[in-house]
Amino acid sequence: MTTGYPSKLLEDAVSEFSKLPGIGRKTALRLVLHLLRLDSGETESFGNAILRLRREIKHCRICHNLSDSDVCYICSDPKRKKELLCVVENIRDVLSIENTNQFNGFYHVLGGIISPMEGTGPADLTIQSLEQKVIDPSSPITEVILALPTTLEGDTTNFYLFRKLKDSGVRITTLARGLSIGDDLEYADEITLGRSIVNRLEFESTMKNPS
Amino acid sequence: MTTGYPSKLLEDAVSEFSKLPGIGRKTALRLVLHLLRLDSGETESFGNAILRLRREIKHCRICHNLSDSDVCYICSDPKRKKELLCVVENIRDVLSIENTNQFNGFYHVLGGIISPMEGTGPADLTIQSLEQKVIDPSSPITEVILALPTTLEGDTTNFYLFRKLKDSGVRITTLARGLSIGDDLEYADEITLGRSIVNRLEFESTMKNPS
Repeated sequence: MTTGYPSKLLEDAVSEFSKLPGIGRKTALRLVLHLLRLDSGETESFGNAILRLRREIKHCRICHNLSDSDVCYICSDPKRKKELLCVVENIRDVLSIENTNQFNGFYHVLGGIISPMEGTGPADLTIQSLEQKVIDPSSPITEVILALPTTLEGDTTNFYLFRKLKDSGVRITTLARGLSIGDDLEYADEITLGRSIVNRLEFESTMKNPS
Repeated sequence: MTTGYPSKLLEDAVSEFSKLPGIGRKTALRLVLHLLRLDSGETESFGNAILRLRREIKHCRICHNLSDSDVCYICSDPKRKKELLCVVENIRDVLSIENTNQFNGFYHVLGGIISPMEGTGPADLTIQSLEQKVIDPSSPITEVILALPTTLEGDTTNFYLFRKLKDSGVRITTLARGLSIGDDLEYADEITLGRSIVNRLEFESTMKNPS
């Protein structure tokens, strides 16, 4: 470990950076020295962006995504399909799905998945708000897409949500599992390959854009 | 590239992080979301550490190292040997040498090395201040150790400094070049191996601690 920093201010900044995931003290020092080489205005804008973010950011009260206002720009978009609701673990997943340009409905951000190992139970997530939204008789939702990770925790959460929502009468779907684009069969794991045989598609359907 | 951030505040923070060297937009997003998950006090202390660093840090007026005060803790240490002055490129090199616990003199931080490719000339560095320090008749310095990188630019700078300082009568030395500890001969480059033969050491001298 590098010790003996010539300055407490420097040491503090390095310590703060090295608390971030994947950043050790050597990288932290390099980043901090980079910030010192910048114009002081640029470093100010870095520090202020962090402080403003933490002080001012909100959660959308409808989908629980991060937002600058009470209702996020997705939930306030009148052109989206009110019938479709996509349930995701976190905001990164919203961004990933948005980047595919293949989904034009709304989102519901759970804020995590059920994980007994990490002590996350249903009450820690926005499941109650999801239920109310789907079960509400005036709700326009006809399909809930469960877009959770294909892990044990993801499957557990899928199953829990399915049980909660199945009586509402809406269609409940999940993301297709199969080979990734570019995958070699010999490197695909057995479960994925097995599912991709069981859930095989009409070849013709793969030739058109799936939007 | 990930686009469509749900929040301008989030986008700003991600942009600021992704300006740092070696941090792309995906990593930046991960770091920013990490900061949002922390207690707000911790995120505040991160942002404030950056702002305070940039606003309050100084350069030691003697050695040009970063410092919280006018004179850094090394330059104000009465137990160090006034006779030895070690010239380094930057503050990281001060930390590296301090961590060896093998040097007990003072430092002079050049703030870079002469590099025509990057447009860094002698006037951009603290060479004048070094000359004054060494040439001053009342100076206690008897040896200047040039501890610059073993690159073309480092060699150029070494040579430039040597010409400037040689008439002062102080001894001018440079770091030993040779095999790294743990090096296999077959993987050492020819120049390093050649030098380590030319500058071979009495075996007995390698058996004692070089302090």
